[in-house]
Amino acid sequence: MEDNGRTARKRAQILEAARPVFLRNGYVGASMDEVAALASVSKQTVYKHFTDKEQLFTSIIMDTTAQVEGLTKMITATLDDDGDLARDLRALARGFLGAIMEPELLRLRRLVMAEAERFPDLGRTWYERGFERSLKTLAAAFGRLGERGVLRLDDPELAAEHFVGLLLWIPVNKAMFRGGNDLYAEADLDRLAEAAAGAFLRAYASPDTA
Amino acid sequence: MEDNGRTARKRAQILEAARPVFLRNGYVGASMDEVAALASVSKQTVYKHFTDKEQLFTSIIMDTTAQVEGLTKMITATLDDDGDLARDLRALARGFLGAIMEPELLRLRRLVMAEAERFPDLGRTWYERGFERSLKTLAAAFGRLGERGVLRLDDPELAAEHFVGLLLWIPVNKAMFRGGNDLYAEADLDRLAEAAAGAFLRAYASPDTA
Repeated sequence: MEDNGRTARKRAQILEAARPVFLRNGYVGASMDEVAALASVSKQTVYKHFTDKEQLFTSIIMDTTAQVEGLTKMITATLDDDGDLARDLRALARGFLGAIMEPELLRLRRLVMAEAERFPDLGRTWYERGFERSLKTLAAAFGRLGERGVLRLDDPELAAEHFVGLLLWIPVNKAMFRGGNDLYAEADLDRLAEAAAGAFLRAYASPDTA
Repeated sequence: MEDNGRTARKRAQILEAARPVFLRNGYVGASMDEVAALASVSKQTVYKHFTDKEQLFTSIIMDTTAQVEGLTKMITATLDDDGDLARDLRALARGFLGAIMEPELLRLRRLVMAEAERFPDLGRTWYERGFERSLKTLAAAFGRLGERGVLRLDDPELAAEHFVGLLLWIPVNKAMFRGGNDLYAEADLDRLAEAAAGAFLRAYASPDTA
């Protein structure tokens, strides 16, 4: 048990050190020597935990999908609370936007896309276990609102895709095409969230709701 | 004049050969030797037309923004023809989707994003002269429909951003995270275009129009 704890801590320590190395230099430019130096371990220790650079890279990327748990809980808690739908959708939109516009996640996203031809399975798996999982949670919550007659929809998954499209296309793509991460102030994100929630409601709220 | 023609042809020939080299190997991996060999010119000739690898890369990327002309003409022609708005929006959505899901453009998009930290100005300029220009054309056309009372909108630019978000977020992002380009059949794109146009109309058509 004690040993497992130490192994897990060492592994986390290496991942923590490796993430900025890959984000800064890309997959090809990332050096296992630099990772070992930054993690303050020997190169043998790095290879004991990760058999090669590809496995280390995969672990860095896939570890981030754990962050989706927080997002899915927020979706369910916000939309299932029987509150004011317009207010809830705005809050949800703002939370979603804040999570995805987080600077390190944007850089990671860019890195996964950049390597999508080299590691197509990794890109697909990251998308499926990360973004797509929160999309499915959102679709399920919209489905329940549809059954209660609050939203008017035949296809909850399509409605979820439209919600995130209204919300994310503009800010995420602008961010993807620029370096730097100072693109939006908090007030801009508030405004984007409010506009997306409003358009979604006009497209999907039942006439009785609106 | 004759010389100018020959110079332009030679330049185009080098760009044509260089594009797949950069798309396949990325900026760092692209070799000027390979470009010269594929263009069937000497390396000196490559350097006569493009002072260095960075300038060649910039030219490849920026040359593609010329393709936006076709898209902006289509937007104006489709939305200004006083036809059936629902039908016109579907046609426009389908045209937009077909243009952006073009396999080489998707790979180029991935490459520009991948290099956005190294070349932030290039990424921003490509976005502004390319996608953002078509977005402005779309906003202007929506603005005219707003003035005629066909659409109900305060902010034509926001409406244009919502239209492309509804349409493009899902297919473009799925494509970005996978290698390969066989993600969507024509029928899938038809369905996506129809769904996006429908949701946009529900959110933005005047009650008199719908």
